[in-house]
Amino acid sequence: MLIHLSSWPEIDARLKATKTVVVPIGSNEQHGPTGLLGTDWLCPEIIAHAAETQDDGLVVAPTFNIGMAQHHLAFAGTISLRPSTFMAAITDWVSSLTRHGFERIYFLNGHGGNVATIEATFSEIYAEWSFVEERPPFALKLVNWWDLPGVHRLCTEIFPKGHGMHATPSEIAVTQAAYPDRIKTADYSPQIAPVGPIRDALDYRARFPDGRIGSDPAQASPEKGQRIIDAAVPALLADVKAFSGEVAP
Amino acid sequence: MLIHLSSWPEIDARLKATKTVVVPIGSNEQHGPTGLLGTDWLCPEIIAHAAETQDDGLVVAPTFNIGMAQHHLAFAGTISLRPSTFMAAITDWVSSLTRHGFERIYFLNGHGGNVATIEATFSEIYAEWSFVEERPPFALKLVNWWDLPGVHRLCTEIFPKGHGMHATPSEIAVTQAAYPDRIKTADYSPQIAPVGPIRDALDYRARFPDGRIGSDPAQASPEKGQRIIDAAVPALLADVKAFSGEVAP
Amino acid sequence: MLIHLSSWPEIDARLKATKTVVVPIGSNEQHGPTGLLGTDWLCPEIIAHAAETQDDGLVVAPTFNIGMAQHHLAFAGTISLRPSTFMAAITDWVSSLTRHGFERIYFLNGHGGNVATIEATFSEIYAEWSFVEERPPFALKLVNWWDLPGVHRLCTEIFPKGHGMHATPSEIAVTQAAYPDRIKTADYSPQIAPVGPIRDALDYRARFPDGRIGSDPAQASPEKGQRIIDAAVPALLADVKAFSGEVAP
Amino acid sequence: MLIHLSSWPEIDARLKATKTVVVPIGSNEQHGPTGLLGTDWLCPEIIAHAAETQDDGLVVAPTFNIGMAQHHLAFAGTISLRPSTFMAAITDWVSSLTRHGFERIYFLNGHGGNVATIEATFSEIYAEWSFVEERPPFALKLVNWWDLPGVHRLCTEIFPKGHGMHATPSEIAVTQAAYPDRIKTADYSPQIAPVGPIRDALDYRARFPDGRIGSDPAQASPEKGQRIIDAAVPALLADVKAFSGEVAP
Amino acid sequence: MLIHLSSWPEIDARLKATKTVVVPIGSNEQHGPTGLLGTDWLCPEIIAHAAETQDDGLVVAPTFNIGMAQHHLAFAGTISLRPSTFMAAITDWVSSLTRHGFERIYFLNGHGGNVATIEATFSEIYAEWSFVEERPPFALKLVNWWDLPGVHRLCTEIFPKGHGMHATPSEIAVTQAAYPDRIKTADYSPQIAPVGPIRDALDYRARFPDGRIGSDPAQASPEKGQRIIDAAVPALLADVKAFSGEVAP
Amino acid sequence: MLIHLSSWPEIDARLKATKTVVVPIGSNEQHGPTGLLGTDWLCPEIIAHAAETQDDGLVVAPTFNIGMAQHHLAFAGTISLRPSTFMAAITDWVSSLTRHGFERIYFLNGHGGNVATIEATFSEIYAEWSFVEERPPFALKLVNWWDLPGVHRLCTEIFPKGHGMHATPSEIAVTQAAYPDRIKTADYSPQIAPVGPIRDALDYRARFPDGRIGSDPAQASPEKGQRIIDAAVPALLADVKAFSGEVAP
Repeated sequence: MLIHLSSWPEIDARLKATKTVVVPIGSNEQHGPTGLLGTDWLCPEIIAHAAETQDDGLVVAPTFNIGMAQHHLAFAGTISLRPSTFMAAITDWVSSLTRHGFERIYFLNGHGGNVATIEATFSEIYAEWSFVEERPPFALKLVNWWDLPGVHRLCTEIFPKGHGMHATPSEIAVTQAAYPDRIKTADYSPQIAPVGPIRDALDYRARFPDGRIGSDPAQASPEKGQRIIDAAVPALLADVKAFSGEVAP
Repeated sequence: MLIHLSSWPEIDARLKATKTVVVPIGSNEQHGPTGLLGTDWLCPEIIAHAAETQDDGLVVAPTFNIGMAQHHLAFAGTISLRPSTFMAAITDWVSSLTRHGFERIYFLNGHGGNVATIEATFSEIYAEWSFVEERPPFALKLVNWWDLPGVHRLCTEIFPKGHGMHATPSEIAVTQAAYPDRIKTADYSPQIAPVGPIRDALDYRARFPDGRIGSDPAQASPEKGQRIIDAAVPALLADVKAFSGEVAP
Repeated sequence: MLIHLSSWPEIDARLKATKTVVVPIGSNEQHGPTGLLGTDWLCPEIIAHAAETQDDGLVVAPTFNIGMAQHHLAFAGTISLRPSTFMAAITDWVSSLTRHGFERIYFLNGHGGNVATIEATFSEIYAEWSFVEERPPFALKLVNWWDLPGVHRLCTEIFPKGHGMHATPSEIAVTQAAYPDRIKTADYSPQIAPVGPIRDALDYRARFPDGRIGSDPAQASPEKGQRIIDAAVPALLADVKAFSGEVAP
Repeated sequence: MLIHLSSWPEIDARLKATKTVVVPIGSNEQHGPTGLLGTDWLCPEIIAHAAETQDDGLVVAPTFNIGMAQHHLAFAGTISLRPSTFMAAITDWVSSLTRHGFERIYFLNGHGGNVATIEATFSEIYAEWSFVEERPPFALKLVNWWDLPGVHRLCTEIFPKGHGMHATPSEIAVTQAAYPDRIKTADYSPQIAPVGPIRDALDYRARFPDGRIGSDPAQASPEKGQRIIDAAVPALLADVKAFSGEVAP
Repeated sequence: MLIHLSSWPEIDARLKATKTVVVPIGSNEQHGPTGLLGTDWLCPEIIAHAAETQDDGLVVAPTFNIGMAQHHLAFAGTISLRPSTFMAAITDWVSSLTRHGFERIYFLNGHGGNVATIEATFSEIYAEWSFVEERPPFALKLVNWWDLPGVHRLCTEIFPKGHGMHATPSEIAVTQAAYPDRIKTADYSPQIAPVGPIRDALDYRARFPDGRIGSDPAQASPEKGQRIIDAAVPALLADVKAFSGEVAP
Repeated sequence: MLIHLSSWPEIDARLKATKTVVVPIGSNEQHGPTGLLGTDWLCPEIIAHAAETQDDGLVVAPTFNIGMAQHHLAFAGTISLRPSTFMAAITDWVSSLTRHGFERIYFLNGHGGNVATIEATFSEIYAEWSFVEERPPFALKLVNWWDLPGVHRLCTEIFPKGHGMHATPSEIAVTQAAYPDRIKTADYSPQIAPVGPIRDALDYRARFPDGRIGSDPAQASPEKGQRIIDAAVPALLADVKAFSGEVAP
């Protein structure tokens, strides 16, 4: 059940059966010479929507499409929230969803650069309760789609060399499977991009001139992307089920 | 050109031809017994994407899908930002887009409840420049899709009675045209919903028990929605063109 | 009853009879070559105090004299709050007044540029309650003095041409009625000022060199101002009475 | 020259002669059984306006009438900003006034409870410059009206017993001189109110049941108030002149 | 009992006997040509730890070592919080300590520049309770170590000339007593530093080129420092005892 | 060179030789039945100070002793900043240190729970520069002391079983080496504490009743702690040297 394509009475009714909601969350940022700017929010959306197709019991929120991408701002099309803004926005999403009775908020994340801020936000949210000796009526969970059981291993099997950390062939393949008419090609060199620390936007662009980090994305194909999606979907369903079934200590 | 389905070199190249970007912005909130929760962000997205199909020169950002909907929070599925959060997020979008050289940011809005906060945000952004006697290198514009020239008149022609202010047949028709397999029906009464002031969420639910304000949305149909879209698209293209051509005084 | 000229036991006693308070709110900003910088906070103060003289039952708070005027900052004497500051301040006024038992806070506004931020603030305040499923023990209302029943019509009757939107003859007339020894004259041209969009301060000054928008304020006179005040006072008293009598749904 | 009763061209012209502006600042809060709620903003306004009458060269801003009065909130009619809000608002006033070229901002304060927050605000404002190794083009000064040379001594001469710290006979006398038709009387006991620490609002009310601290305000009279005003006015003019003439090191 | 050198069960047990905690608070900032940068946080730490050695019943929190020192930022080694940050941090310390059941938080302060911001913070904290008509379950107290009964008098007895206001011989003597191997000497002139207003960092450095204000710190010696400590310790223990014994009104 | 035990001219002189500063950063939080509440800020302080003893060229800031520990707040003595406060404070430390010319700020961290927030803060700081297309004149680095080359391996060699994640024998051993007179013992069971997710404070206490996660801290001894310190010190010096020598791309 996709929230944005449902009516409120439908969500109201579904809340009798489940208290868990999945929020695809990512970033809109450069993904090298060939990757889509939307890659990081499209991937979790693609996987979550595919899972929902298989199991209508899965409640999926609209996609949180802009995250923390300050280091990519020297590349056109990147849109970033400051961490403090990102924290405020996630907090309001959580306040809204728990207001309706959702007790488990599962963030399926598509951007490594989001992780620190999302975790800091969880602490900010929990702190309100921890300072006053009350238990929040909800639990929050963050999972990167590539960390779903089995997925990362599959990605490195398919792309044993040049997987890298940004504009990876696996994430680009996932978008190719979903948007085959948007596949782009480009000459780039070196074949495998350099690696290094991530700091501000100009430092990033100086280190990684075409945007890639450690990756060779030309290896991507829609078929490989579909294999990854097919592995991720059951893993997601199983993980969400386990989260839904957790008993508070 | 949809930013999220483009690569950064494509956006970089396009910035040589245009400095204008359209941001569809809306809200995810209850739309009565039959309307989609995503209605208010789907409508501007539908219209902007249709316009982009006709004129690839139009640069469209990802959709800003969560807005200010505190008054709808007593209905399941609604997600709202506090105005202060909304302001911070819009500010960061503007900072990101202008960082790349966009000089005209055109917000195509789908939610009346967003208007005050978006305008307050524009003032917050401009104030940074006004306090220091500098001119910002950009201009901001907010247009509700129903206020595009000719559109509101068409809506009231098609729905002379029971158009109302929330969960209107025209906005629901637009979503029906785009998502015909998601059309929902429900019995509701009275046929035309009541009207009244908008305050907090429980007050709202007490006044408007099924969520509608002044509307009779069952009049909607995909065909009517398509007529509205067909009117809105050229109006949007013309309005964006005029904005792009504005000369600063 | 003017709060600032009363003692706390007097307000305490009055709260047994009424739960409504009127807050005159405006802005201190340029009003063209002849208008007083205080025009926008003086007008609602003049009207509210005149109403209190007629009906001592009306409780009037001190005047909130600085609002959102970033676009006027290129003209000397303008003082503006950023929208975010304005929101925080209004919130604290409301928290203070409701702390004492006031249940209806009626903002009588004198500045169009305040409207978006005040409405956003109302949403910010209500959101605290909407997120937690509680009803606030108060209602908030914003009314521009020229939108009091009959007033705008009277203004356009008196000034059929060149009323405009900023530094209007009607608001200047109101201040002339109250401060006849502060009437100023100046040569200006064109007789009727231009109109256009409102953005940052330097853009504003470039478009509207002497500060007026669409107005010809030399038509103002103390007598005309008194007629407007005389129309506004009973309209305000009636509107406040209706607000006080509202029954929550 | 009162800013709010001037036009912008008048202020513009005056800025050629002086770069100093006086901001009367106070609080709207209970002042015991007989004092006006506006006492703390009326006193500096009365003194500053009297000074402006004597020397039209003195530029006086509108009165900043709501300050930090959280401890008085258990008494009806008190309106308080949180310190953080107060800081933001003062910052915006300073940003506005310095935008026009004022280089010396002189806050004439009427409320002891404001002092800590105003000083913290000055540091917050200066810190922006201190962190970046630049000098601000302005200086800020805070003076309580009773600390103007000679004034406090006069007050304790007139009221050698029961002057106290809150709802003092001297501040009430000043308002009586200006608003003789608003003089109030009440029985209270003990004649001289208790003293003690200031904390939250309920603690305050428990310690100081009628609102006074250490004072016996019934000693006030309009004549005594006028003597205080007459002493404060030249002291203010001299102090502002000295501040205007300061040479940066 | 020093919290940071205790285990949580030890603090838990101690809370049965006392509800009071002392927080040494200061600043890390230049202290003239010979003073340690840590002087202002070392002094209250030295005194509080010495007191704890004499009376293990005294619960002492870790030292809050960075305060409000924006005016010293033109001297290397100074670290300052903005007042707004300082307020947020103190608030969180108070929230944490009161969460455990401490009901009296006693800040032993070592930096005059902290006073305004700490007091503003107390008001910010209390305001949360004052706006909602509840009593906080705690009381806050701020005492500068030199204001402990008898201490300031002793300091001026020991240093009748050239005590001054910053980099005073008494505070430097206290650190010399505790860190005798860190005593520094330097030539400076004039012997007694100038005095003047405190504004931004560059203004400060221009007025006070070596950092001192009004002081002649070469008079300090470890022996004099020990006398001061010996006077401060019993004064602190007595003052904390009195605070602990206060009965709420 | 310890900043807090130096004078400003000493730091000023040292800045000619090095632009790097080490900031020990940790948390004050429960560390199981035997660990010191200060463990997480004492460990990096112990290691950094030991390194400074060996190489006086190392500039060490005061210890940032309170971090993000909301999940430990159900245990007495824990003091936590909210993530947003922590971010503001780190930002001000960085602003202060870079104001003096430090170009490399190296945070030596002692608390895993700090990592997300510190990284989010780095992004918040960098974002200011990334949005405006400027390079910051500094680089930031975060290293947990146990992640210094060779240290974690040594810890797991010494404690092959029951090292765990919180209140580990290695961190407790480090504090025992430095504070041998503060060694505490306690009976606890199970010998090896459970593991699980970290959420709010009451959830934490329910899962981990004595505060430990996965650890058996009774294995600690001062000698083992000294071995760890002896391994960490040269690793720190080498890592700082490498960071100082980095050339910007």
